[in-house]
Amino acid sequence: MTLQTWIPVPEGSDFPVQNLPYGVFSPPGREPRVGVAIGEQVLDLSAVWAGTPLGADLATSSLNRFMRRGPREWAYVRERVTGLLTGDQERRLVAANLYRQDQVTMHLPVEVADYVDFYACEQHATNLGRIFRPDGAALLPNWKHLPVGYHGRAGTVVVSGTEVRRPSGQRKGPQDPAPVFGPSARLDIEAELGFVVGAGSALGEPVAVDDFAQHVFGVVLLNDWSARDVQAWEYVPLGPFLGKSFATSISPWVVPLAALAAARTATPVQDPPPLPYLVEKEPWGLDLVLEVELNGQLVSRPPYAGMYWSPAQMLAHTTVNGASLRTGDLYGSGTVSGDEPDQRGSLIELTWNGRDPIALADGTSRTFLQDGDTVRITASAPGADGVRIGFGEVSGTVRG
Amino acid sequence: MTLQTWIPVPEGSDFPVQNLPYGVFSPPGREPRVGVAIGEQVLDLSAVWAGTPLGADLATSSLNRFMRRGPREWAYVRERVTGLLTGDQERRLVAANLYRQDQVTMHLPVEVADYVDFYACEQHATNLGRIFRPDGAALLPNWKHLPVGYHGRAGTVVVSGTEVRRPSGQRKGPQDPAPVFGPSARLDIEAELGFVVGAGSALGEPVAVDDFAQHVFGVVLLNDWSARDVQAWEYVPLGPFLGKSFATSISPWVVPLAALAAARTATPVQDPPPLPYLVEKEPWGLDLVLEVELNGQLVSRPPYAGMYWSPAQMLAHTTVNGASLRTGDLYGSGTVSGDEPDQRGSLIELTWNGRDPIALADGTSRTFLQDGDTVRITASAPGADGVRIGFGEVSGTVRG
Repeated sequence: MTLQTWIPVPEGSDFPVQNLPYGVFSPPGREPRVGVAIGEQVLDLSAVWAGTPLGADLATSSLNRFMRRGPREWAYVRERVTGLLTGDQERRLVAANLYRQDQVTMHLPVEVADYVDFYACEQHATNLGRIFRPDGAALLPNWKHLPVGYHGRAGTVVVSGTEVRRPSGQRKGPQDPAPVFGPSARLDIEAELGFVVGAGSALGEPVAVDDFAQHVFGVVLLNDWSARDVQAWEYVPLGPFLGKSFATSISPWVVPLAALAAARTATPVQDPPPLPYLVEKEPWGLDLVLEVELNGQLVSRPPYAGMYWSPAQMLAHTTVNGASLRTGDLYGSGTVSGDEPDQRGSLIELTWNGRDPIALADGTSRTFLQDGDTVRITASAPGADGVRIGFGEVSGTVRG
Repeated sequence: MTLQTWIPVPEGSDFPVQNLPYGVFSPPGREPRVGVAIGEQVLDLSAVWAGTPLGADLATSSLNRFMRRGPREWAYVRERVTGLLTGDQERRLVAANLYRQDQVTMHLPVEVADYVDFYACEQHATNLGRIFRPDGAALLPNWKHLPVGYHGRAGTVVVSGTEVRRPSGQRKGPQDPAPVFGPSARLDIEAELGFVVGAGSALGEPVAVDDFAQHVFGVVLLNDWSARDVQAWEYVPLGPFLGKSFATSISPWVVPLAALAAARTATPVQDPPPLPYLVEKEPWGLDLVLEVELNGQLVSRPPYAGMYWSPAQMLAHTTVNGASLRTGDLYGSGTVSGDEPDQRGSLIELTWNGRDPIALADGTSRTFLQDGDTVRITASAPGADGVRIGFGEVSGTVRG
């Protein structure tokens, strides 16, 4: 039976009743609280549960206190909200606590604990290998044995809409005798998904790959802004640091895993077979498509279904050494790129390191980002009842 | 005039009245609160300021709320505590709120926001270069131009005394056809200092190198436990991940910068001269000596004064791209090693990658750590009035 809501939801909306993503919003002049998006509106969950301990956890400026309650409570709230939006018993309660999305302020949905970024797309890793090591093997020896990842800066994760200031730093071309300091000349994007940990784990206790949904609450869009020139000079031997740490943008809406059941798919065949701790019983690949717009012009449609490592494998790998998880941990998939040139999730790939500029409709062209440029990433997944699940957007404008 | 306290302080104590490090402790059966160490005792600061807003910020389970108040407040509290411990007006207030250190439980002093680890010791970087690249240049090209660093896992920073479970993970020797999974066979330590950020900064606004003391609250001892075999296989191209993220131990006492004024010294000559944003007017090198004990036996005395990059330079570098600081950010200096073989701060250096085992007094020897081994790191710095400033200890025992 197809779920039907009595709330008006425009055709093609990102937020049908089968989605119900969570975010943190402020009504005009009021304090932040947790809400759920439905069509063009947002339902104030703190008001629905007012006067209860759950309501107190929802009347806060991040999802963390709600997420910490764990997967049974996530399922309970989703079921109850679905009932409110589809039934006819409590319409006055709902109607009194709906706000138009265009009249509220969205906040960073999660107080980020640790932030990890992976590198899980074979096409992306291969493209970068070809660009930077044209005479060597495109993939490094460890790449097909483990999801390569590293820790990024949690404190500079910002919500969509936050301006991104062009970072300054050291860079050194191969012919330069010494590094020079100045604004990055090669500011790039990376179109990714981000996975939000809701329920933590104990130090010393690895999380099994099949326990993914016991810990991960939901999914956001993520733009891992990257200063390629800074990164190229700094990253040996300990990895990216200032080339990434100036800003990472995420979408304000966290799509719960439950909304993505119809999008689940197998990862590509993994050959060589991974070690046992990385073998999934139930695959957590996701059949969704991202779209990247530069100044309003579609420049890429990266398909997530081709990602080599699943988010469940990334989580199992993160904890296999006994590292604990905390509520609010966020991990990025790494840039999503497909096989085709117009499916690449970063400018360095789309322009092949600047060789092939992108022509824009205004007659200009881009290799890397200019001041004033706006990047917007969206995504679509198949949902229950044949509907489309959207993610809202993650956008940002570069400031000089 | 030499400061004198009326509290009995044993000769050679780490905690003379010129030190006054901050920590979080629980009296038996009671809640955590902020205290200051004096001799063999700890003064409950939440009781000294009971009934005030400051007292509320001190009656908490981390130093964060106190640190967030900023450097003027840090100076005020230090002056007031010094007065209480040296004057004769309020001895009853003090005496009523002193606890013996051996009767309280110490906690992780800081709720860690972001954790960064540097690689700021030329001797250490050179030793590792010689071990791993015997035919190449010991230092990589960027090393003398910037303090190389990377983000680590904040959620697995633990307080001294926490057992460290031997991590499992993938490793692959050069002759192995494929990686194998199992407990690390090359578990190591790294003896470091850790710097605790008390006052944050705004996104997009670099912190000048000379503003170090406006942001950094104090210094801890830090043991960056490292699984060398896991690290060697995983770390290209994005840096260390699971080889480090299972545990990082810090001492429970945070020595305030004000206690280290007499220890300040110039860094070694930096040649080539660093870029302007890294040039200090007032040097923040620190003339202190660490001691590393393995199962009670002194195995190394790394001198901190030889560190190439100062903590003020590390902080300026961290923020030069506009990355913000948060209260609770922690950054490690990287392993401290001196010029002499018995001044090296890691087992991989002390045993030269296992070639030269360390003989222990019990007749056994070590290349890397065995289950049951205990590592303890201490340090001494010159303080005001010619006294010795100690740091307590960071210790941990390996569990299989």
